[in-house]
Parts: sequence; C-alpha cells; structure tokens
Amino acid sequence: MKQVTLTVEGMSCNHCVNSVEGALKSAGASGKVDLASNTVAVEYDESKISLEALKEAIEEQGYDIVS
Amino acid sequence: MKQVTLTVEGMSCNHCVNSVEGALKSAGASGKVDLASNTVAVEYDESKISLEALKEAIEEQGYDIVS
Repeated sequence: MKQVTLTVEGMSCNHCVNSVEGALKSAGASGKVDLASNTVAVEYDESKISLEALKEAIEEQGYDIVS
Repeated sequence: MKQVTLTVEGMSCNHCVNSVEGALKSAGASGKVDLASNTVAVEYDESKISLEALKEAIEEQGYDIVS
C-alpha cells in the first residue's frame, strides 16, 4: 500500500470530510481528512489505481488539490 | 406567509446550504441561505408551523441560531 498526503483547498466542514473520504472509498482507496491542516492522508494500492485518478475523484467533488 | 431572516453560525459550504435548506423544506417551509452573510431567509405559513420548530430543524442539522 502506498501512502501520500495531499493538501486540498475548500474542505470546510464535516460534509466536506464525508464527501472527500467517500470519493476515495468509492475509488477503492482510503483517506482521512484533517480539516485543520487542509490535508487528506490517502492510502491506496498503486497496482490498482493511480494517484492521478484519486486526485481526480477529489476534484470531482469540487475541491482543488494544492499539492 | 411569514418571512424572517435568521443568522446561523457554522454554514460553510454548499453541502451546508443543502442541509439547511433541505431541513426547512422537510419541515414544510422554504429557505434561502446566503453563505456570505451567514443568514437564512425563511418563508413559512405560521398557521402550519412555528418559527421555533423551524429553528430546531436547523439546529438538528448541527448549526447554531445566533439571532
């Protein structure tokens, strides 16, 4: 399993947490949002899904990946 | 129809807008959230529902009524 921490703009409340973590789960990964630091700790199997696809899943929820 | 504008704390994103407006709709009223001013313009039939009940519907979504 690969782990990466993304910085994501626009996550402001628990609805956003559910939205982002749910999108990662639907994509076959797992994520843990920390609202205070605007980050998402993502864990995924890189033989199954790319980081690029996971970033897109987050962006589709209306958030911007900063780094 | 009676109209009132409430100031509500904690509404931060479009999920919150949907949450608050949806709760008012479920209660038989209608509401329009303005995130920039932290307000909800509520329209309701006071022969059918009380303002108190509408405030509770908003609070049940996890928001605080300031005024």
